[in-house]
Amino acid sequence: MQSSDSGNLGRALCIITGASRGFGRTAAREISQLVKPGSALVLVARSGDDLRALQTELAESEAGRAGMVVQCVVADLGLMEGLESVIKSAKEVFSEDIDHVCLVNNAASLGDVSRYTRSFTNMAEVDSYLSLNVSSSLCLTASVLQAFPQRPGLRRTVVNISSLCALQPFSSWVLYCTGKAARDMMFKVLAEEEPDVRVLSYAPGPLDTDMHLVARSKTADPNVRKSLSDGFSQGQVLTCEASCAKLMKLLLEDKYTSGAHIDVYDI
Amino acid sequence: MQSSDSGNLGRALCIITGASRGFGRTAAREISQLVKPGSALVLVARSGDDLRALQTELAESEAGRAGMVVQCVVADLGLMEGLESVIKSAKEVFSEDIDHVCLVNNAASLGDVSRYTRSFTNMAEVDSYLSLNVSSSLCLTASVLQAFPQRPGLRRTVVNISSLCALQPFSSWVLYCTGKAARDMMFKVLAEEEPDVRVLSYAPGPLDTDMHLVARSKTADPNVRKSLSDGFSQGQVLTCEASCAKLMKLLLEDKYTSGAHIDVYDI
Repeated sequence: MQSSDSGNLGRALCIITGASRGFGRTAAREISQLVKPGSALVLVARSGDDLRALQTELAESEAGRAGMVVQCVVADLGLMEGLESVIKSAKEVFSEDIDHVCLVNNAASLGDVSRYTRSFTNMAEVDSYLSLNVSSSLCLTASVLQAFPQRPGLRRTVVNISSLCALQPFSSWVLYCTGKAARDMMFKVLAEEEPDVRVLSYAPGPLDTDMHLVARSKTADPNVRKSLSDGFSQGQVLTCEASCAKLMKLLLEDKYTSGAHIDVYDI
Repeated sequence: MQSSDSGNLGRALCIITGASRGFGRTAAREISQLVKPGSALVLVARSGDDLRALQTELAESEAGRAGMVVQCVVADLGLMEGLESVIKSAKEVFSEDIDHVCLVNNAASLGDVSRYTRSFTNMAEVDSYLSLNVSSSLCLTASVLQAFPQRPGLRRTVVNISSLCALQPFSSWVLYCTGKAARDMMFKVLAEEEPDVRVLSYAPGPLDTDMHLVARSKTADPNVRKSLSDGFSQGQVLTCEASCAKLMKLLLEDKYTSGAHIDVYDI
């Protein structure tokens, strides 16, 4: 996919959370190849080293050498300060000739899948999971929409990295399923409210990531664990690149219904 | 509906949250008429006066005079201490001849519907909403299941008071929709994990309650607000009694698929 008037994301400011590894890192790489000169990327993650390595890589890429700004924000999105530092960075790199603001809400945690629902009696644990996976994504999205309000000539896109777990219950995955279902609904409400904002919940499929390794080794439910392991050994997991390419296709074509949940296997 | 072997809830311990008014209060009244002698009700709410008035009323009712125990717990379910005091009370009133433990997760708040999603930039506000409406319901359910584990002859039922908002986005209701969607999924996961527990998400419909008054007067979206007001003036809201009767029908028949979302209009 090369930059052309129909095949690029414009002169974009893209904010990507959880960008240090896995799907978020791949999304940062792919997006950097699809934006016009004059664009800026704000990469957010908790771990600074991986993030800065990616920043260096992108700065040295063709887009980087053509002037794309890449900013790192090492922040915990479960904290208000983390969220504020993302907005601060995004405002710093924004310039008036940017014509597309794109937020990719990718940061997420799996939660403890080694236990069943009946073991979740500690509110602090559940509160903290929901804060990182639900509240932070709502408040970051709201903050970005406020920081870059609607104006003629400015496209705004918000992507929610979702999961099949938003639609379907998986035994011993109560936090993950609950958080993903909550997020899908939140972005559906947003799509109702803001007709000018393009809102997409994208389920990337089973990916060959650290999260999948944890999932297939730690999941309490033996059937779910076996199904994940079998899927992995049979090569049914996707590379982040393959899945991300489908997301890029959706974003470039820009024809999805705002607020929709679209699965990688639907494309 | 009178007590008969097919028409009662057994010798039950029923825990009802948000029992001081609205649907929760009605559920307490209806349930008290459907349990066998030797049963116990644990009524939970934040406001003590209304709760104690209900306790007095139920103690003086036919079931109360026949020995049904009614316990009040004045507690904030958004706090771990509140949750622990519910479990403590439930254990106190439990006796070995109780054959049905039933938890009705009814407590909920509407959230601030006078604002749109883009205004929710304050994580503490969102965290607190999710804590009261999602975490507390997960942790209370888990605690009840642990306090009263599976054993031969003991039925266990968990009801989630849900809403159409769990399935459908409503403009300017982001917190409520998100919380209800989260809860529905959480209870679906529970149903997968615990085949012996009967799990029901019941959407009671638009009810003539204080919450509906707030909803139809404060909702930011003019179309949603008008639709709520029109529904109210045209008598399309249900009494808590009418809706609760449908829930009781479901519980007595006990034929629903565990984990299902059932709407009052489906019955």
